[in-house]
Amino acid sequence: MRPVLSNAGRPATIEITAIDQDGATVPTAIAGENPLTIYLDNRELVTLMTLGQSPEALVIGYLRNQRLVGRIDDILAVQVDWETGACAVRTACPIEDIAARTAHRTVTTGCGQGTVFGDLMADIDKLRLPAAARLDEATLYGMLDVVRKHETIYKAAGAVHGCALFCGTELLYFVEDVGRHNAVDAIAGQMWLDGVAGDDKIFYTTGRLTSEMVIKAAQMGIPFLVSRSGLTQMGYDIARRAGITMIGRSQGRRYLLFTGAERFQRAAASAS
Amino acid sequence: MRPVLSNAGRPATIEITAIDQDGATVPTAIAGENPLTIYLDNRELVTLMTLGQSPEALVIGYLRNQRLVGRIDDILAVQVDWETGACAVRTACPIEDIAARTAHRTVTTGCGQGTVFGDLMADIDKLRLPAAARLDEATLYGMLDVVRKHETIYKAAGAVHGCALFCGTELLYFVEDVGRHNAVDAIAGQMWLDGVAGDDKIFYTTGRLTSEMVIKAAQMGIPFLVSRSGLTQMGYDIARRAGITMIGRSQGRRYLLFTGAERFQRAAASAS
Repeated sequence: MRPVLSNAGRPATIEITAIDQDGATVPTAIAGENPLTIYLDNRELVTLMTLGQSPEALVIGYLRNQRLVGRIDDILAVQVDWETGACAVRTACPIEDIAARTAHRTVTTGCGQGTVFGDLMADIDKLRLPAAARLDEATLYGMLDVVRKHETIYKAAGAVHGCALFCGTELLYFVEDVGRHNAVDAIAGQMWLDGVAGDDKIFYTTGRLTSEMVIKAAQMGIPFLVSRSGLTQMGYDIARRAGITMIGRSQGRRYLLFTGAERFQRAAASAS
Repeated sequence: MRPVLSNAGRPATIEITAIDQDGATVPTAIAGENPLTIYLDNRELVTLMTLGQSPEALVIGYLRNQRLVGRIDDILAVQVDWETGACAVRTACPIEDIAARTAHRTVTTGCGQGTVFGDLMADIDKLRLPAAARLDEATLYGMLDVVRKHETIYKAAGAVHGCALFCGTELLYFVEDVGRHNAVDAIAGQMWLDGVAGDDKIFYTTGRLTSEMVIKAAQMGIPFLVSRSGLTQMGYDIARRAGITMIGRSQGRRYLLFTGAERFQRAAASAS
């Protein structure tokens, strides 16, 4: 049963005035950034700084990616109140040892709270991503074209990261947030809400392929991770261990295939 | 007295091979990313993911910006051991209530651990940045030229943020890291180590002007904050409250002056 949700999305940008190099006063759109404190079964858990576009999905995805909640069915209600900057989450099985569960903290490059990292690194080798899944070059290029048309907030205000979930060239979700980790979590939450599995999906991010980004994609069971940006050493190491197909520096008709080449089909290859 | 420091800087990039859109195997430099767990007086505090260029300054700056240590003199030793991924910090006055001090967590957009945020927001209005400090356009442009020449890792591998501290057009420090928050903290730590005050300095970042970035600059007593990127709503609000002079979207001969215009002198103005 779907949890009871508020519908408290916020306007993405506000307009301020700045002075440019010519001394002209120019109206400038900037990205919203709002503190949202999660109360899990009446216990304060963490405060996220978010654009606030889809706060309910963000909170659910945060709980999922932090592995504080095991299944969407355990979440009864997610109520966001911007007046107080609070999000009240009610679960079917209140977690007794929140403190212990969240004690070991890691500040990941991508800003994730720590539990996800320490725990998942231990499990990373157990992860099995679908070996038969395939992505061809034409689909990759098609995705990139779709993304280009969707970066509304980035175009207007900059200062945001975008993440998208694709099934082939079909865009299922596109989320932008001031924190890249939030955009990922919001998609993870929406996947849970809609009962969408990751095994035949492609995850796209404008951000860098850091350890946290790769871990979260693998945790969502998504075999393909595509980024416009570069990658870090640990992102690379984890991608290889998790057997994820990772493509970076992808824009227009250019890309670099970093790992999991066996799932990727170049145009030439597929034509032969 | 300067703390006893290890000198455990790591190579910034490693080289991997990728396959490009033409099917060619291309050597690709990627940014290093290493977990470093801080043990503060033998108690595990947090694990940072870092490029590892200047880990000792990073750890000192982290403790400073998280307000866990009040003065550099309280730090006796900082010893980094990459074999174990551990950094042992010894202080003159071990903090008894670490748990309590770090209990309230905020995942800031810029990935800082939380204590800094909650605490400092309460103090932000008490901060007084030097009103007489001035920055003119020629100096800004000179800074931007210097920065352009220094982004070695970014040019080689991407996936890093750069931060710099300037006195006029003189570059005092330039730090790149996979985490923007790390680059800021490393500069804060180096300032402490060298006894450098912030009041006549200019802080430059390639990253976005988020709440955390503005708070940290203000906390370091630096009146000028310059970024190549845009800003977020909370970064803007805090900059106004702290009275910091904030310039964004600055590259080449272009910029947007967002706040604190009274400290900035345009070429035209200074020529008149």
